[in-house]
Amino acid sequence: MASEPSSEGTRSRATLQEVASLADVSISTVSKVLNGRAGVSSETRARIEALLQDHRQSQRPPKRQVAPLLEVVCYEIDSPFAGEVLASIEQAARQRRIGMVLTGTTPDQTPYEEWVEDVLRRQPVGVVLVACVLPAEVKQRLLSRDIPLVAIDPAGAPAPDVPSVGSADWNGGYLATRHLIDLGHRRIGIITGPGDMMASTARLSGYRAALDASGLPVAPELVRSGEFHHADGLAEGLALLSLPERPTAIFASSDLYALGVYEAARSLGLAIPADLSVVGYDDLSIAQWAVPPLTTVHVPLVAMAEQAVHLVLRLADEPDLAFSRIDIDTTLVVRNSTRQADFVFPPSAEAKRGRSARTKISGK
Amino acid sequence: MASEPSSEGTRSRATLQEVASLADVSISTVSKVLNGRAGVSSETRARIEALLQDHRQSQRPPKRQVAPLLEVVCYEIDSPFAGEVLASIEQAARQRRIGMVLTGTTPDQTPYEEWVEDVLRRQPVGVVLVACVLPAEVKQRLLSRDIPLVAIDPAGAPAPDVPSVGSADWNGGYLATRHLIDLGHRRIGIITGPGDMMASTARLSGYRAALDASGLPVAPELVRSGEFHHADGLAEGLALLSLPERPTAIFASSDLYALGVYEAARSLGLAIPADLSVVGYDDLSIAQWAVPPLTTVHVPLVAMAEQAVHLVLRLADEPDLAFSRIDIDTTLVVRNSTRQADFVFPPSAEAKRGRSARTKISGK
Repeated sequence: MASEPSSEGTRSRATLQEVASLADVSISTVSKVLNGRAGVSSETRARIEALLQDHRQSQRPPKRQVAPLLEVVCYEIDSPFAGEVLASIEQAARQRRIGMVLTGTTPDQTPYEEWVEDVLRRQPVGVVLVACVLPAEVKQRLLSRDIPLVAIDPAGAPAPDVPSVGSADWNGGYLATRHLIDLGHRRIGIITGPGDMMASTARLSGYRAALDASGLPVAPELVRSGEFHHADGLAEGLALLSLPERPTAIFASSDLYALGVYEAARSLGLAIPADLSVVGYDDLSIAQWAVPPLTTVHVPLVAMAEQAVHLVLRLADEPDLAFSRIDIDTTLVVRNSTRQADFVFPPSAEAKRGRSARTKISGK
Repeated sequence: MASEPSSEGTRSRATLQEVASLADVSISTVSKVLNGRAGVSSETRARIEALLQDHRQSQRPPKRQVAPLLEVVCYEIDSPFAGEVLASIEQAARQRRIGMVLTGTTPDQTPYEEWVEDVLRRQPVGVVLVACVLPAEVKQRLLSRDIPLVAIDPAGAPAPDVPSVGSADWNGGYLATRHLIDLGHRRIGIITGPGDMMASTARLSGYRAALDASGLPVAPELVRSGEFHHADGLAEGLALLSLPERPTAIFASSDLYALGVYEAARSLGLAIPADLSVVGYDDLSIAQWAVPPLTTVHVPLVAMAEQAVHLVLRLADEPDLAFSRIDIDTTLVVRNSTRQADFVFPPSAEAKRGRSARTKISGK
């Protein structure tokens, strides 16, 4: 039956027999491991997994039968970022009459422990990872059954064995910073993401490159980091705006950060963009809804989702397709949160400086 | 095989034979219709559907076998509201080791045309509808196969044949308005949802009841409506704030509306809460991220999602369970967008009134 989600019938019985005799177990035990069923000790399971993996490398099994399902694992399903990516993946899958099975992650950005068993039972066309990672052992189990994986905007560094779709992060960081420099800003703060995440490192690098290109120094106190949450934007925004010589502009490298910076500015009585220019990153709907509407870097989420679905389906057909990484271009969307700095006398910075000077004098 | 998603084996062959001979087709044609496969003319399909439906009413078929999948159909997957509901449904499904198959809708809040065929092939445990509706014919096809349906916060009026989970909308509207009255506001605008949607009618009714209870009139010019989008909040907010005698408070009956009202206030140079108090509805994350953080009515989305999943699974076990509707309680969350009105001399209203009076005099 075409819709039966089992890979068993598609492996030659000879293969199963061979692995079974090497592992000194019955064919039915090998079949259980292959299809993620219970009733096999973890020690035996590991031995069989290793043999299946060896076998795959020496001899490709015949093409498996798949159910018309696409597995999607996503970090923080309820975040605005996830919502927009998932809506696009669902559209792309639906157009191909493939159902999207959506699973959230634990806080460490991996799926729940038994997830891989459930996936082996469902025999999907493939797996798309959104801002999350799989433990090496789980990845092996999927790949040994020719279930292809594609990552969108992977957490951490892209794994060499998982093809990934991202966007031009360095370019986005450069564009955002360049825009602020072109408006006359000279003290530009940045709130970056986690240091072990390629996307945030690339954005920071773009920021540095834009400053360098204009002969501006990178002031260490203006570089702050967080975990891409609103609360980080608020805390780091407050830190930046409380500096003795505060920045006149902040490149918040996510839209959520930017909203946190808005709140930081409000709590200090600073108006955006009159006293502070802010650039976000992602161009989620919340950027348009911000008050004032947020200037931000547009990340092509729709195109990324479409590419990821296209790619995972191609890999299902051609498991040996050589593919590592594609980055789609980013663009700057100028709205109302940025404006020309008063070049000659940056008003608030000067005022601040004035006050500091007076304090110093009176203190002496 | 337990995981085989087919209901065919579970209907007695006698049933199929009976329907086939009544419809004057082969058993295989009946089986195709039952399992959503192609190759049957729409006329024949309709005839068989009707017979299957009759048959179900006269004689319950044996319990069908199901795949461990839960179908979720959701309007505007990328909206903040959907994101928070979907994350909760996924959690509830995952705890039961059931995969969530997520499908978006067309703009008219129904799934794509062939969706029901795909669902019949997948044979899920049940279907949860989030802010959307199914055409009557689609509903019949699912119910005739004992695939249970539950609606969360249904679009339009809850259908009597679909059990639904909602929240106490009237109570929420009352709480929001009562809060503003308690703060001394007397001219309170409202932006409601679509008039044919039960939830928005109930919120409006709560608003009226709270005004009545305080002996305040319901001024028709203060009641505006939209489709729960940000743009409506902006447009209707501008309309309310441009009235000759503008409201000192607005009950925006969705958080997205409230953000639109924020933008309307900003564009008119009005500060929140100094010049205008705003109450939202839903208590999505965007309410906390708003600047200033938004006072809003908390809708218990997590509990609603958990109830819906629990209910659809119970219905899968007990198809005759009598259940129509459950509403979970709403509460008010006070943040920084509301404050005491100046009771004796509402400053802006009085100023405005003063100007109007002068204009009249000078006009005479």
